[in-house]
Amino acid sequence: MTTDPRQWLPAAGVDWTDEADVVVSRSIDRSGWPPSGVPAAVVFPRDAADVRRTLRLANDARTPVVPRGAGTSLTGASTAGTGTVVLDLGRMNRIVALSPEDATVVVEPGVITADVDRAAAGHGLRYAPDPASHEISTIGGNIATNAGGLRCAKYGVTRDSVLGLDVVLADGRQISTGATTLKSVSGYDLTGLFVGSEGTLGVVVRATLRLRPAPLATTTIAASFADIATAAAASVAVTGARVQPVIAELLDEATLTAIDAAQGTSLRSRGAALLILQTEGAGEADLVAAVLREPAVAVEVSTDGTDLLAARRLALPSIERLGRPLIEDIAVPRSRLADAVLQIAAIAERHDVPICTLAHAGDGNLHPIIVTADDDLARRTAGDIFELALKLGGTLTGEHGIGTLKRPWLGRELGPAAHALQRQLKDLFDPYGILNPGKAI
Amino acid sequence: MTTDPRQWLPAAGVDWTDEADVVVSRSIDRSGWPPSGVPAAVVFPRDAADVRRTLRLANDARTPVVPRGAGTSLTGASTAGTGTVVLDLGRMNRIVALSPEDATVVVEPGVITADVDRAAAGHGLRYAPDPASHEISTIGGNIATNAGGLRCAKYGVTRDSVLGLDVVLADGRQISTGATTLKSVSGYDLTGLFVGSEGTLGVVVRATLRLRPAPLATTTIAASFADIATAAAASVAVTGARVQPVIAELLDEATLTAIDAAQGTSLRSRGAALLILQTEGAGEADLVAAVLREPAVAVEVSTDGTDLLAARRLALPSIERLGRPLIEDIAVPRSRLADAVLQIAAIAERHDVPICTLAHAGDGNLHPIIVTADDDLARRTAGDIFELALKLGGTLTGEHGIGTLKRPWLGRELGPAAHALQRQLKDLFDPYGILNPGKAI
Ligand SMILES: Cc1cc2nc3c(=O)[nH]c(=O)nc-3n(C[C@H](O)[C@H](O)[C@H](O)COP(=O)(O)OP(=O)(O)OC[C@H]3O[C@@H](n4cnc5c(N)ncnc54)[C@H](O)[C@@H]3O)c2cc1C
Ligand SMILES: Cc1cc2nc3c(=O)[nH]c(=O)nc-3n(C[C@H](O)[C@H](O)[C@H](O)COP(=O)(O)OP(=O)(O)OC[C@H]3O[C@@H](n4cnc5c(N)ncnc54)[C@H](O)[C@@H]3O)c2cc1C
Repeated sequence: MTTDPRQWLPAAGVDWTDEADVVVSRSIDRSGWPPSGVPAAVVFPRDAADVRRTLRLANDARTPVVPRGAGTSLTGASTAGTGTVVLDLGRMNRIVALSPEDATVVVEPGVITADVDRAAAGHGLRYAPDPASHEISTIGGNIATNAGGLRCAKYGVTRDSVLGLDVVLADGRQISTGATTLKSVSGYDLTGLFVGSEGTLGVVVRATLRLRPAPLATTTIAASFADIATAAAASVAVTGARVQPVIAELLDEATLTAIDAAQGTSLRSRGAALLILQTEGAGEADLVAAVLREPAVAVEVSTDGTDLLAARRLALPSIERLGRPLIEDIAVPRSRLADAVLQIAAIAERHDVPICTLAHAGDGNLHPIIVTADDDLARRTAGDIFELALKLGGTLTGEHGIGTLKRPWLGRELGPAAHALQRQLKDLFDPYGILNPGKAI
Repeated sequence: MTTDPRQWLPAAGVDWTDEADVVVSRSIDRSGWPPSGVPAAVVFPRDAADVRRTLRLANDARTPVVPRGAGTSLTGASTAGTGTVVLDLGRMNRIVALSPEDATVVVEPGVITADVDRAAAGHGLRYAPDPASHEISTIGGNIATNAGGLRCAKYGVTRDSVLGLDVVLADGRQISTGATTLKSVSGYDLTGLFVGSEGTLGVVVRATLRLRPAPLATTTIAASFADIATAAAASVAVTGARVQPVIAELLDEATLTAIDAAQGTSLRSRGAALLILQTEGAGEADLVAAVLREPAVAVEVSTDGTDLLAARRLALPSIERLGRPLIEDIAVPRSRLADAVLQIAAIAERHDVPICTLAHAGDGNLHPIIVTADDDLARRTAGDIFELALKLGGTLTGEHGIGTLKRPWLGRELGPAAHALQRQLKDLFDPYGILNPGKAI
């Protein structure tokens, strides 16, 4: 039926290859999800015109196209199977313009997230969204998944830092959305619609991002608690003290045990839960420490750069020593955070599989990490965690997205009418369904 | 062709009226834009079911429906002409649930904005968006226009505080969007699409809003400058000092003169431009004052509640004494702010009409207020201001929306492909075009 893309690719006038090692490397992402086969080819656009020509021909030929940043997706969003063309945006990686006065930066999609932040730092500014993958993921991928990060608690998700986009639609037409100004309400919010759409509505070829003042000073506070419920309650109490922490990370008992085993630390002996907070405003850390001192068993405050966040950063590498991790990502109303952690521990017991839970406590976003090489077991366990999220009034994904992994569950969360509307949106933007089919919705 | 709505309204089982004074009062908003006539009837839904039944029958009968909050729109978005049914949501004004732990509040659309903030204040929290109309506008109207306000500089626009919505679609079906959690990326962002859609895609019947910690202390700083360019540059320099002010309001010479004339103050004699800033973090005000002291001719700092924002609040009432105000609303990249103010003054001179300009300097959002009773002159002058906005790389509307007033200009800003896509979105959500026809796009 469909033509082999290699027949029309030469006419696109773009760099492309079908070398085995390249197509294989672009067939997978970090989810462990197996693609249906290998892509027919990988295209390396150098500019927006390359993307437009590729999509126009792909649309005519009905060839499925998988946009790809760095392939760090944890949900199978960037896997590419048989017959697909991968659009690898890694070479479109220029920082086009940075205006300190406007506090904006214009970038190509393939720029590495942390590079944007570093460019901003030179002007006393910062790019706030900081997924843990910020040294390896791209801005385009962050936009397409609406990536979160540690600093979300204060600065919000990627959406909150995207002002405008240049997007190539499925048929090769290019549009601009949003504005280069910090505020605009001209027409419907197409920018927001493309953010988080996992490459299924269009390909981002340029973005105008908002920068924020870099803080003058940062203080980190680490507090150990006897149990998770006390830690979660303490985290909420901080808001009650009228402080908005920049970071609020919660580590559960299984995680602390894993870190101790891998790193030779003794975190678990101090308490069954560890809460790490970061504040920026002068005097805020004192307020926070005052709130934590009573419920905590130990509180440490660092202004001198002592790396109290190390435990958080070492968590994943430590857990990986136990076996293959499936990193899950649900969110619940903040008041249900402790409940969620405890019930996840019960799920771990029921399935007899280790689950270590990290949480962005500030926004009720949990990452239960299921450790097993048994795919079936991992999926059954994840299924129970999704059930739990919905039961607690939460959501299937706080920041990683739906991808391939969670598609079977999405209808349950959205309800039939909203789900149908989403499909109609997809059909409107991409009538032949060539953009990242089988993902997101 | 179309049936008189009074024929089907009884079957909807809702409170409605066609009394002359009521329909006339619901035909206009605060834009001064004249509706084509008077609506056929006004419906007062008590709950979402009332809205569903009304829309189902209206859709069947192809009756145009104008959702209405408090009618404070400045763009003609809530005007209602001949043959329309106005859906007045003012009676759906309950605060359904406020959870301090989750930092969320669930409200009906007719709640007055300031009432949400007051309810939050009882728990050390606040609802951040504060349009100048917050004592008279509704949350539903704020959502439908993506209202801004003074505190946007730090906390963003209404969109940034909306987590999820219940929306009744044109055909009477109801959907939920977003989540009750602080983060979610399940499916496309329908929440963002409804925010700012001016009642043309669906009717908001419930909203889950995000609350934030109320600040412990607020400091206000007022600085006078010899000229607008110096004031605008100083405002940008504050960001350079790594402080994010909550409020940054700039008043031009014409505005200061108008305030002095009406209130007997002597603001203009101190300088031709006044910048008023508010900060929240401890020590931030000192940093800001230090930045301003050199370029300013006078700096006043108040921590004791001296109302340095009074000048800003008195601006509109003072300008109204000069004649009928048309309040415009463009935004430009922040670096073009002074340029914009100066060129607006030139436009005022060219058309020989007074224009007083207020600006939310933090986000480059200007409100040039054209003072004249001559509608034609006002529109020609506004037209030049829109041209200017686009020329400076800006947008037609920072926060008031497109409404009826700016529709002729929208295509220029969006470009043909994006504009066409927006129309297709409208057709998808509202195939018979019954929802607020002639507005927004
Ligand atoms: C160690 C590790 C830590 C992580 N931590 C976090 C975290 O803290 N927070 C978080 O949110 N995620 C996290 N992730 C997940 C992942 O890094 C993010 O989803 C990231 O945004 C993906 O970026 P990418 O460039 O790798 O995109 P890819 O994986 O290549 O693609 C992701 C999706 O975006 C689409 N896409 C990519 N580029 C474009 C484009 N230009 N136009 C349109 N669509 C495009 C793809 O089609 C795909 O659907 C983590 C992953 C790892 C491996
Ligand atoms: C003195 C004054 C100061 C102002 N200051 C500001 C300011 O600082 N910032 C700012 O952004 N605006 C400001 N405005 C403009 C106006 O107040 C805002 O646009 C406000 O959001 C409108 O709210 P409303 O309830 O009056 O809505 P309305 O005027 O009744 O309606 C506005 C739009 O929303 C739609 N709508 C209303 N309710 C719903 C619903 N439940 N579902 C779907 N659609 C709905 C209507 O159809 C219409 O398109 C000001 C206005 C005045 C008069």
